[in-house]
Amino acid sequence: MAELERDPETRLEEQETAAGGYGLNDEIVQDIQEALEEENFPYVQETLEDWHSADLADLIEQLKPKLRAPFFQAMEGQITPDVYSDLDENVRDELVEEMEPAEIAAFVSALELDDAVDVLEDLGESEQQEVLKEIPADERAALEEGLSYGEDTAGRLMQRNLIAVPEYWNIGQTIDYMRDTEDLPNEFYEIFVVDPRHHPIGTIPLNRAMRNKRPVAIRDIMDTEQRLIPVDMDQEDVAYLFQQYRLTSAAVINSDGALIGVITVDDIVDVINEEAEEDILRLGGVSEDDLFGSILSTSRARFPWLFVNLLTAIAASIAIGFFDATLEAIIALAVLMPIVASMGGNAGTQTLTVAVRAIATKELTSANMMRILSKEISVALVNGAVFAVLVGVIAWLWFGQAKIGGIIAVAMIVNIFVAGIFGMLVPVTLDRLKVDPAIASSVFVTTVTDIVGFVSFLGLATLFLL
Amino acid sequence: MAELERDPETRLEEQETAAGGYGLNDEIVQDIQEALEEENFPYVQETLEDWHSADLADLIEQLKPKLRAPFFQAMEGQITPDVYSDLDENVRDELVEEMEPAEIAAFVSALELDDAVDVLEDLGESEQQEVLKEIPADERAALEEGLSYGEDTAGRLMQRNLIAVPEYWNIGQTIDYMRDTEDLPNEFYEIFVVDPRHHPIGTIPLNRAMRNKRPVAIRDIMDTEQRLIPVDMDQEDVAYLFQQYRLTSAAVINSDGALIGVITVDDIVDVINEEAEEDILRLGGVSEDDLFGSILSTSRARFPWLFVNLLTAIAASIAIGFFDATLEAIIALAVLMPIVASMGGNAGTQTLTVAVRAIATKELTSANMMRILSKEISVALVNGAVFAVLVGVIAWLWFGQAKIGGIIAVAMIVNIFVAGIFGMLVPVTLDRLKVDPAIASSVFVTTVTDIVGFVSFLGLATLFLL
Repeated sequence: MAELERDPETRLEEQETAAGGYGLNDEIVQDIQEALEEENFPYVQETLEDWHSADLADLIEQLKPKLRAPFFQAMEGQITPDVYSDLDENVRDELVEEMEPAEIAAFVSALELDDAVDVLEDLGESEQQEVLKEIPADERAALEEGLSYGEDTAGRLMQRNLIAVPEYWNIGQTIDYMRDTEDLPNEFYEIFVVDPRHHPIGTIPLNRAMRNKRPVAIRDIMDTEQRLIPVDMDQEDVAYLFQQYRLTSAAVINSDGALIGVITVDDIVDVINEEAEEDILRLGGVSEDDLFGSILSTSRARFPWLFVNLLTAIAASIAIGFFDATLEAIIALAVLMPIVASMGGNAGTQTLTVAVRAIATKELTSANMMRILSKEISVALVNGAVFAVLVGVIAWLWFGQAKIGGIIAVAMIVNIFVAGIFGMLVPVTLDRLKVDPAIASSVFVTTVTDIVGFVSFLGLATLFLL
Repeated sequence: MAELERDPETRLEEQETAAGGYGLNDEIVQDIQEALEEENFPYVQETLEDWHSADLADLIEQLKPKLRAPFFQAMEGQITPDVYSDLDENVRDELVEEMEPAEIAAFVSALELDDAVDVLEDLGESEQQEVLKEIPADERAALEEGLSYGEDTAGRLMQRNLIAVPEYWNIGQTIDYMRDTEDLPNEFYEIFVVDPRHHPIGTIPLNRAMRNKRPVAIRDIMDTEQRLIPVDMDQEDVAYLFQQYRLTSAAVINSDGALIGVITVDDIVDVINEEAEEDILRLGGVSEDDLFGSILSTSRARFPWLFVNLLTAIAASIAIGFFDATLEAIIALAVLMPIVASMGGNAGTQTLTVAVRAIATKELTSANMMRILSKEISVALVNGAVFAVLVGVIAWLWFGQAKIGGIIAVAMIVNIFVAGIFGMLVPVTLDRLKVDPAIASSVFVTTVTDIVGFVSFLGLATLFLL
């Protein structure tokens, strides 16, 4: 093992560059795996000494599962709680299953509130209770409150720790208060100004606070324009507000309008990623990120989509079945018919992808829906015509029958036209019915384009070729 | 027009709630459109008086194109430059086309550097030069430098305005410097510490600076761990660093290692969105967001994908063509064959969606690729077996021939198995070849599953049924 004999300091430096610049690289993972297999624990420890928790979490995800126990043995005491909160859910669940409630409690209570709630909510009900029992009463109350907010709401995202000062203070008092208070958040970007009922009435960005002299009154330099976030607001809407108004942090209020927490933009980065990932996966017929899931849970999760697809495929086959006499007479039709269905499916997918994305970004609304639908119809007619000519000529040359070329050309225009209309209307309708358009649009649209593709082509053939 | 007679103040309040809470709503857009059609400009002006630039930009996107000119007439002087930077590119291009270079220059030079560069880069080469000519020399230099960095690099994202202090200063000197300097950035979250060559050697979060007393030395409280960003780093990698290490801002350095700018997390939010959007659209066969594009540009942009699909569909048809004798003998095969291809296509899409996403998030690497491939194979075998039984029984009952049921069952297992392997290997291989897996995976995988589906089913039928 040449690597193991090299000076750890040299390798450490190389690896810091790699991990510090662009995350893990494969050589490091291989290297650590080999060291773990050889039980060369000091090497592992020295190599990973200064690693960031997020990189350690990635490393754990990459390790062969059987090397995870040796890894924790090697890293005894060097795994900070943050590593757990950075881990993929599936991997974390596996690790946490092996732990005693007291151990879980120890790292949970070292996490920031939102991360701690994240870890707790993945536990089973009874295990959650056991872990909570091990946590000191005051922290437990905060955690239980966090868990009481609906999943994916502002309440789950917020930190309770924040700086709030009355408007009659001045900068000097505020600075002194910040210097004297122990229990301040680690990171914050603005100071909240509250009235006597603790309702937020303004904010002061930290840099403005620093640039003003001590006697300046808070009320004279605060921003009164605020975007207040109700504690039960869905995280997708919270993310929208942050993006739309370029917020860095925002106050969270309870139903009485009192300031109870703060959400910062770094939490929003995770939400945006989560929501985009959800859309990507749902459009691909996958309900959740199952990369690190078990075989059976992955198979089960993917089954429903495949099952729905089976039903729609059978529906398309039944449609074909009506034309068995036609197919029997002209076998070329069986050869050509998938082209019409496939082109319609792809044109429909293009339109629905644009529509699903535009609905998510609130660019497609009922105010401009008709305009955009009529544009999609025009686009469909243009591309439908182009591909009708292409495919018509190909079919004509292939089977030497102009009539087959003409029929497939007409079927192609019809199907791409239908694809454009349904590709737009299906997501819009699903959205109005409060069904996530990302999850169901594709199956509806491709069912329509399959059936219309087969029926129009075989139907026209029955009328004009038999 | 009942709405127009209502007290503007009341309506203003309602609309502020709507726009302030969740962006535009359709009623407001309708309302403004009606007022514009009636040329009731004072109403429009009063209603939109306090609107945020991002909401105004959304409104402009939603308006019927012919109402945009009246809108600008009505809002004379109330459209801030920020509105232009918040606009969709297609819509902005249309508006900018109507403007004189001097007008464009006026709003461009009011924008922050990164936004200004964004607007300029969309202009044609000659128009860009004309606009730049109208801009004062010092600003022009900064813009030209901004434009000189590659598109989608750190250089384009960064602000040049930042606070940098030497390590031998203390907090008091730093605060005095901030109070005395006019040209400070509007928003910043940390102070950079530099050595005499202007290389960054540490950072101090603003809140820490505020909590320490004036005599405390900068060098004693600075964080020396930094994630430095080379100016030519791709924005996707920059976004990765921000997410991985939960950065709020980071120093950008030139090739000599000197501090030349700063990137803040609010710019990263846009990048993450852009990159996720790109993946979503590419997976759906669309090259860019074309919601507001013209009919012809949209048709043209969607053409290549449909053309590639046509070629693959023809390839599948050719494969079917080899079995025309078999199809002629047993027409039930023509009815059933799309089921096998379709199920394979969907299973393959599930796998490739997970793989494409996992590559983008760096969760799928060559270190764990074999492990995850073998999991995908197991998942494919499980679901392949389940659907083989289902579809086999259905085919048997439908056509009353056990043999057809058996053949479609075997073809189904083969095709879902192949879908699992190719769904994983195609994106991984494309990624190694430096081709974006989001754009090309789907066409390769579905071509394979189409052809394997048809050939396995019809081939087995030829062997065992004729």
